[in-house]
Amino acid sequence: MILGGYMSEKYVDIYKKLDMDIEKHSELMSALFQLFSDVFLTQKNRPENIKYFDWLMSEIHGKRIEELMEFKDKNKPLVGTFCIFIPEEIVVASGGACYGLCGGAQFSIPDAERDLPRNICPLIKSAYGFKVQRTCPYTQISNFIYGETTCEAKKKTWEILNDLHPTHVMHIPHMKGKREKDLWREEIYEFKNHIEEIVGKELTFEELKKGVEIINKKREALQRLDYLRSTKPDIVPISGLDSLLVTQISFYDDPERFSDKVFELCDELEERIDKGISVCESDTPRIMVIGTPMAPPNWKLHQVVETTGGIVINEEACIGHRYFKDNIDLDGVESVEDIIERMLERYMKIDCACFTPNDERIDKIIKMYREKKADGIIYYTLSFCHTYNVESKKVIDRLKEEKIPVLKIESDYSAEDVGQIKTRVEAFLESIRFKKSFKAKR
Amino acid sequence: MILGGYMSEKYVDIYKKLDMDIEKHSELMSALFQLFSDVFLTQKNRPENIKYFDWLMSEIHGKRIEELMEFKDKNKPLVGTFCIFIPEEIVVASGGACYGLCGGAQFSIPDAERDLPRNICPLIKSAYGFKVQRTCPYTQISNFIYGETTCEAKKKTWEILNDLHPTHVMHIPHMKGKREKDLWREEIYEFKNHIEEIVGKELTFEELKKGVEIINKKREALQRLDYLRSTKPDIVPISGLDSLLVTQISFYDDPERFSDKVFELCDELEERIDKGISVCESDTPRIMVIGTPMAPPNWKLHQVVETTGGIVINEEACIGHRYFKDNIDLDGVESVEDIIERMLERYMKIDCACFTPNDERIDKIIKMYREKKADGIIYYTLSFCHTYNVESKKVIDRLKEEKIPVLKIESDYSAEDVGQIKTRVEAFLESIRFKKSFKAKR
Repeated sequence: MILGGYMSEKYVDIYKKLDMDIEKHSELMSALFQLFSDVFLTQKNRPENIKYFDWLMSEIHGKRIEELMEFKDKNKPLVGTFCIFIPEEIVVASGGACYGLCGGAQFSIPDAERDLPRNICPLIKSAYGFKVQRTCPYTQISNFIYGETTCEAKKKTWEILNDLHPTHVMHIPHMKGKREKDLWREEIYEFKNHIEEIVGKELTFEELKKGVEIINKKREALQRLDYLRSTKPDIVPISGLDSLLVTQISFYDDPERFSDKVFELCDELEERIDKGISVCESDTPRIMVIGTPMAPPNWKLHQVVETTGGIVINEEACIGHRYFKDNIDLDGVESVEDIIERMLERYMKIDCACFTPNDERIDKIIKMYREKKADGIIYYTLSFCHTYNVESKKVIDRLKEEKIPVLKIESDYSAEDVGQIKTRVEAFLESIRFKKSFKAKR
Repeated sequence: MILGGYMSEKYVDIYKKLDMDIEKHSELMSALFQLFSDVFLTQKNRPENIKYFDWLMSEIHGKRIEELMEFKDKNKPLVGTFCIFIPEEIVVASGGACYGLCGGAQFSIPDAERDLPRNICPLIKSAYGFKVQRTCPYTQISNFIYGETTCEAKKKTWEILNDLHPTHVMHIPHMKGKREKDLWREEIYEFKNHIEEIVGKELTFEELKKGVEIINKKREALQRLDYLRSTKPDIVPISGLDSLLVTQISFYDDPERFSDKVFELCDELEERIDKGISVCESDTPRIMVIGTPMAPPNWKLHQVVETTGGIVINEEACIGHRYFKDNIDLDGVESVEDIIERMLERYMKIDCACFTPNDERIDKIIKMYREKKADGIIYYTLSFCHTYNVESKKVIDRLKEEKIPVLKIESDYSAEDVGQIKTRVEAFLESIRFKKSFKAKR
């Protein structure tokens, strides 16, 4: 497999148009593809249909950017985001594209730390650094960056980022009562207005409905994958790393093509289950990872777990289950207002730790743990993410009450703590294995 | 001066009633009073009328708690807070008392770190630790702790704290548009309802007006002190430490008595100015401290500045100018609704870094700097306070544009970094002195 056409002339032309730092970008891509090869292509027994996703990762700054340039040429909105609170259905309804921005690499952090404190979340620093470096084509090509108020370090960073690139900040309230719903509804309409200004027309009912249908289908595809990877207690047909890759790609691929490809992959996974093909032994400790999102190329924890004898069967995270768990109910909608109302309802179900209280998240985690017959939970939090970090106390207390094995890991994007994490994960998996063998004997 | 009657029998009786850990509390108080003696009583040339405030500090867990017990016996609401967004006028209108809770000491932090992450703001950990330890009588005596959503570590900590003590969380939105105003108004009414439930009656227009008048007067007293300490470019009639002490005490003293005492102090300061009595040489570098609040006994930075040859002439902080800068305009109010509306307007002027954007804060800082003829600014932020920390970039960029000398210091409550801070402050003051002498020569 040839990784990355990012050095080909036609892409370099695009990078030039997007005012990118081409030399620095080459450095980034070469490091990225080396890492991708090391982490993903060394895995054994991968499903055949994962190839599409490998290819799309290799074309993350290639073919996909070329496609987005066509949107740009047709004056269709291109919106980059770092948060799943973005009503992407509206962007898609307008004929535009919505995608997650680069924010998972250590590479850009030193450039961010000239402007931002060192002790904030690495995702924010990484993302901001990519803008400073001009090495992320998704940022460069976007009409605006979508910001929100879910976390305070992001909220304050938009103000600084706005000097480098236009931002649209949506006020996400931190409770879920009627007054917050009223506020939020107005924010959705304002976002819709912004998109309509770009395309120069009001979105019709049909367009909006179509936008919702496309994203609903994408979420359904991801729900099916989530189900298949963990439905059998003794067969796991796809690795956690590969599943994470698919979810990460859901944030930048064309949603319709993506859904088709995920359904194809799922068909294969069903066949694998029927044939008893698993990527791991049947007694492998099944781990749920819960907490903060892992933006590519943040594959650190999954790699550690899966090279230490465990298997990740779920991500309860924004790049994960939290993103695709709820669809927008279109049943009986008759007007634009109806759709916006349903959209509001759907987005209010997101159980981000920015909300207070957020107890529904805890109930959900325990339910998922039982359903997926997991053996243990790793509570993963990015360094300095106060909301998920403080919330871990309540979550972990409840898990302990339920006698669910849990390990908390706080980490950033540096490679420095890999050894330490590996040691802790090893001990955790060992204790789970001990329990499993003890149960099996009884 | 005898520091602290906290060991006397009558107070110990109260501590017992409040279910406090009496032994641990004695440890705390003995450390506190030693520190207070070392920092405050060693100062020279203090105004005579500071004695009242010394006394009130010595009675922080003595006489003042005895007074609050009388409120409790009369079923008057006692509300503890960590934020100036609390509409304290409503509590005072009901005949109750509103006060800041202990949250400035390293003493309680180890006990908090069993439940909370190490890498959140020390104020939150300290405050939470006091509840765990049962060493803060203000917390123990309160009907409820007032929480809010201004910062995420606090917001999430209320959920945990609520298991140990009742909390009332007010949703403070992070923008200042009409929809946020609508949300906030409802929050104020809900807070008022809560207070009314405690007293068992609706608050009348007259009561509310009286409550506002009492707090307005307190703010006027503090405004006058703020003016007097910095009005003359060559005479500073009171140290920064003593002024900070007065502001800190404004958060727990009886507001009417406090105002009278501050006015008495101010009369003396005016006399001092007339007589040319200053606590420092006329060429002493005049420092404005801007940023996060300093809860007692967090006197670290002021002590460093004032024992290193500088003088602090202002605190642009929540325990400082941000708290008292705006009064509630009662002109023409005719109903309870009118008062709430004016209250809303006043509280919306708070330029906390939780807001996005918050540019009015920057303009204000520069205006204050000019008016107070300051020589330099120290941007102070508590460790891991993302909002003030990220906002520092915009503030400092603007200050540099305006050629205002600025030093940023991030610190917690430990004594470990005092030496390092001293070195940095020394160099900063030296550079200011050099500039001043250069200007004087020209």
